[in-house]
Amino acid sequence: MEIGWIGLGNMGLPMARNAIKAGHHLMVYNRTRERAQELKPLGAKIANTPAEAASAGTVVTMLSDDQAIEDVVLGPGKVLNALGAGGVHVCMSTISVSLAKRLAESHGAQGQTYISCPVFGRPEAAESKRLLAIPAGRRDAIERVQPLFDSIASATHFIGEDPAVANVVKLSGNFLIASVLESLAEAFALIRKYGVNAKEYLELMTGSLFNAPVYKGYGALIAEGKYEPVGFRMVLGLKDAGLVLAAAGAAAVPMPIASLVRDRFLTGVARGMQDADWSSIARLVAENAGLK
Amino acid sequence: MEIGWIGLGNMGLPMARNAIKAGHHLMVYNRTRERAQELKPLGAKIANTPAEAASAGTVVTMLSDDQAIEDVVLGPGKVLNALGAGGVHVCMSTISVSLAKRLAESHGAQGQTYISCPVFGRPEAAESKRLLAIPAGRRDAIERVQPLFDSIASATHFIGEDPAVANVVKLSGNFLIASVLESLAEAFALIRKYGVNAKEYLELMTGSLFNAPVYKGYGALIAEGKYEPVGFRMVLGLKDAGLVLAAAGAAAVPMPIASLVRDRFLTGVARGMQDADWSSIARLVAENAGLK
Amino acid sequence: MEIGWIGLGNMGLPMARNAIKAGHHLMVYNRTRERAQELKPLGAKIANTPAEAASAGTVVTMLSDDQAIEDVVLGPGKVLNALGAGGVHVCMSTISVSLAKRLAESHGAQGQTYISCPVFGRPEAAESKRLLAIPAGRRDAIERVQPLFDSIASATHFIGEDPAVANVVKLSGNFLIASVLESLAEAFALIRKYGVNAKEYLELMTGSLFNAPVYKGYGALIAEGKYEPVGFRMVLGLKDAGLVLAAAGAAAVPMPIASLVRDRFLTGVARGMQDADWSSIARLVAENAGLK
Amino acid sequence: MEIGWIGLGNMGLPMARNAIKAGHHLMVYNRTRERAQELKPLGAKIANTPAEAASAGTVVTMLSDDQAIEDVVLGPGKVLNALGAGGVHVCMSTISVSLAKRLAESHGAQGQTYISCPVFGRPEAAESKRLLAIPAGRRDAIERVQPLFDSIASATHFIGEDPAVANVVKLSGNFLIASVLESLAEAFALIRKYGVNAKEYLELMTGSLFNAPVYKGYGALIAEGKYEPVGFRMVLGLKDAGLVLAAAGAAAVPMPIASLVRDRFLTGVARGMQDADWSSIARLVAENAGLK
Repeated sequence: MEIGWIGLGNMGLPMARNAIKAGHHLMVYNRTRERAQELKPLGAKIANTPAEAASAGTVVTMLSDDQAIEDVVLGPGKVLNALGAGGVHVCMSTISVSLAKRLAESHGAQGQTYISCPVFGRPEAAESKRLLAIPAGRRDAIERVQPLFDSIASATHFIGEDPAVANVVKLSGNFLIASVLESLAEAFALIRKYGVNAKEYLELMTGSLFNAPVYKGYGALIAEGKYEPVGFRMVLGLKDAGLVLAAAGAAAVPMPIASLVRDRFLTGVARGMQDADWSSIARLVAENAGLK
Repeated sequence: MEIGWIGLGNMGLPMARNAIKAGHHLMVYNRTRERAQELKPLGAKIANTPAEAASAGTVVTMLSDDQAIEDVVLGPGKVLNALGAGGVHVCMSTISVSLAKRLAESHGAQGQTYISCPVFGRPEAAESKRLLAIPAGRRDAIERVQPLFDSIASATHFIGEDPAVANVVKLSGNFLIASVLESLAEAFALIRKYGVNAKEYLELMTGSLFNAPVYKGYGALIAEGKYEPVGFRMVLGLKDAGLVLAAAGAAAVPMPIASLVRDRFLTGVARGMQDADWSSIARLVAENAGLK
Repeated sequence: MEIGWIGLGNMGLPMARNAIKAGHHLMVYNRTRERAQELKPLGAKIANTPAEAASAGTVVTMLSDDQAIEDVVLGPGKVLNALGAGGVHVCMSTISVSLAKRLAESHGAQGQTYISCPVFGRPEAAESKRLLAIPAGRRDAIERVQPLFDSIASATHFIGEDPAVANVVKLSGNFLIASVLESLAEAFALIRKYGVNAKEYLELMTGSLFNAPVYKGYGALIAEGKYEPVGFRMVLGLKDAGLVLAAAGAAAVPMPIASLVRDRFLTGVARGMQDADWSSIARLVAENAGLK
Repeated sequence: MEIGWIGLGNMGLPMARNAIKAGHHLMVYNRTRERAQELKPLGAKIANTPAEAASAGTVVTMLSDDQAIEDVVLGPGKVLNALGAGGVHVCMSTISVSLAKRLAESHGAQGQTYISCPVFGRPEAAESKRLLAIPAGRRDAIERVQPLFDSIASATHFIGEDPAVANVVKLSGNFLIASVLESLAEAFALIRKYGVNAKEYLELMTGSLFNAPVYKGYGALIAEGKYEPVGFRMVLGLKDAGLVLAAAGAAAVPMPIASLVRDRFLTGVARGMQDADWSSIARLVAENAGLK
């Protein structure tokens, strides 16, 4: 496939690399041009503007937040104008439900198709093609883009015809992960204070009831107090907690644990931990228990 | 082994049955004598008092709460007096950390050994011998009782020499489960309001990051809105939330999610759901979102 | 003064009436024209559009939320265009801190002055001229508009030169009130369950430590379970809780009680109480305690 | 009146002094005898044991917690035995509802009368006789002890015939104060981050809606960041939060703000602030917002 690719951050870069390796022709754009250059040896073309990338007819955006998406897609001379009738925009970023709705409308008004396809997985998973992609939008369009998804994800799960629903599901998933972080942080603070060995405890818990990757992976980070390398920055955790609360608010769903984890991430950011891994909220929890 | 067994509730009865089937000789006591009679055909002897059961030298208690344990163990003519020097009390109930400490002291003063051995698993797991036993106490005593554990649990995990620590671990585990219940309840309320199919959603989530029994099992109950048969009553969920907060308070560990789930269970109990399965807090969460 | 007045809701109408009675010449605009007609006998002129009202050179907006303000102020043919250089916009609505910043910039770019002047007080207070006005913006402009404030408020308190700060203060005040509602609701649920007479309790509490209008007024509503007539609708309480959290989020300030009351108002709205007085969250709290 | 007085802490000492000055004959007991000696020049007799103090026939206890009360009242050779039939025990400490019930029963069984009479006010108020006393118990007994109340409090408010209800009311009052502390702490963190002057803000808020002593007094401490001298230690705030939650739990009343403030006080205690004034939770709140 001919694909314009916008956004080469710590998720976007390995994803784009896998797409190229699978044989797709990518025209890449990144605000910091150096990162785009990294893909040149693999055969990528470099776009000078988001609009140039969009001229491929199918464009993927993998950017950090709503604002970044709005900046490259909306407004004169941007993706929306450059994509042309019949074009497809696949947004793989974790964005708000309201922006997804707005993008669906805006692209629709131009005779274009908008697909929300957020992904689950940290940078290592992006690197090793173990992402889970959850597209929503017109089914025929998603089927045509399937080869792209196959090149970057180990599984694709179609969510529905309304693009915004994929964003709701993605945000709910990140909420569940954040809930695990907070609850593990509290449990570890408790058992540490009673002298239980954190690693043995984790092994016990993840040996039965909680034998899922999210407990094993994050549990290990917390048990070892080793929050580097950073997989997902706390400021992004805060952003997503805000987005899930916004989506919940719009649908009148009280989510007290979401409120609680938002306050926790906000504390982390206020205290200068914005670039630390989001699992390091366990440090704040431990500190509040008088632990180091 | 010759074992006195006190407590034949929906957990105690199947556990005692498995112990008998494995060849142990049980002298059983239950406040409601009828339940004890059920085991007679299998070969159990019936004790008329807790003290009589304790005369076996090794006694197991599997009762609902602190008060019930205090009633049969402490005070004149009870287990503590009847057990005799060298006796072993294995408490498999989920009790408070402070009572575990007190029992350890009281039995110790009598030249007896106290073992805390709470178990993870619902009644079905007790029935099918798939419990996880986590004993703590004197290692040699635990080794001697191992054949009993083998007859009722699929795995035994030694936690430490201090009995109370097993209770901390058990309570922390129940806390983690309760956190899962609440977070799933919130996530389901959200996605249902956006028209996502609850069963498909659950399949997606438990297909990857959350592929653990606790998510699959409770997730299915919540997705289907089917909270019967009752595995663990809400009033016991409330009790355990209170116990984990008490243990956390004694060690100066703030656990805001524990506070939140306690308030949730308390709401359920105040509204007459004390005998419903604890996972039915999802009904309260859904109701607060205007769902049925 | 010649004043354009936009917004004649249950706050705006009595405020405008008091301004007219004090001798100001008002050109009023309201989306539902009937409410504007009510003021004609007192001498008000009726504007057909927000722009016409703005032609007075000084324009007051008293609308329900951000969207309503944006609709009448921004965009072609609206207040921003019609006000002219040197014009003054006094926004008395409770709006977001971010919109206040944006209005300050937009008006500034047109050579106009923007003043945020939210007010404290319920409709009865507006009627009887007992509002507290808290203007922020250019001091000289505020001084010129002082006669208007004097006609509708019993006190004016200058907050600072940055308009948005008045909105922060207003939102923080509404947050404090909401905190009082929730804490009173919890305290009343507790004492009622122990058989204490609610009115006697209120009298005791407000006789000493808590002898402030906010406790006396809302306490009486809750003690009597009488939430009508509606002074401030729950959906507006929810809006303000959202705005204070947005302002807090932008400044990295975790406010867990604000999160909690937002969840409470959200519950009320989800359950169909959007038009009930915001103090009726006490009904939800009581219901959760098994009370009626 | 002839009165035995047990407990001369930072509340008990000034209260006892005022009672003596008003002409009552006190036989005082304190664990640390030095503090009792201070009252000797005023005419107090020194008791060597709690039992000796109780021999006066009417005995007041003003101790720090449940444990301290149990230690002097229950058990052989303590107040309960020494008081004699017809004796009166007035407990002015803030104790649990369950202990109050137990004391009422125990004294009743001895033909004695138990009165719960907690007081509102900090040490300065005790000093200057501005306490509020809220007795509950047999009305005739309370009337007989009224001269004592008159000598130490500026007002007495009879709560009911069931002693424990006075404790519920007292605990609910402390809960309301703690809610004020937390909500003020959050509001101050917010407005400080937006550059609003804390003292001006406080003046504005307490000039109208919130013109109550609790806002003025604690607000000033928080606005100035001056938490000394210590009026009420954080560890006592934690104790009372625990007691109100216990009372609420026993009556099935969810109180989420009480849970939240308990977690806050617990954090303070875990971080070494157990002896700081409870209002210094505002420091924790500010710190979580990145303020000093």
